[in-house]
Amino acid sequence: MSKAIRNKFGKQVRNLRRDRGWSQEDLADNSGVHRTYIGAIERGEQNVSIDNIIKLAKALSVSLEQLFKGL
Amino acid sequence: MSKAIRNKFGKQVRNLRRDRGWSQEDLADNSGVHRTYIGAIERGEQNVSIDNIIKLAKALSVSLEQLFKGL
Repeated sequence: MSKAIRNKFGKQVRNLRRDRGWSQEDLADNSGVHRTYIGAIERGEQNVSIDNIIKLAKALSVSLEQLFKGL
Repeated sequence: MSKAIRNKFGKQVRNLRRDRGWSQEDLADNSGVHRTYIGAIERGEQNVSIDNIIKLAKALSVSLEQLFKGL
């Protein structure tokens, strides 16, 4: 089910963000993705688009392949 | 730039589809993603959402990690 994978993706984003010691606001500032949107992505609530996925990967300095690792 | 990565993603989808000997219509039927939308994704024109990315990966029997390999 899509929702389960979305949830895993959200957790991956959250873990990578926390590894960097960043708040959601820090990730928003560094990626250009709005802060409330970051929260929704991390909770798996957002049907995030590839453009925003790319912005998050760039801010977190990971490849898309790494961002989807294990998913 | 996002567009370059979107283009690569589209080529990846196209290659995987062709490896299976599928037309865009076959991939549309197997994934539940509309045919004209498949064309736009393959050309990098579509800001595809994670839910549709998941549908494509399932239809192509690849993980998300594999779908984004090298990107």
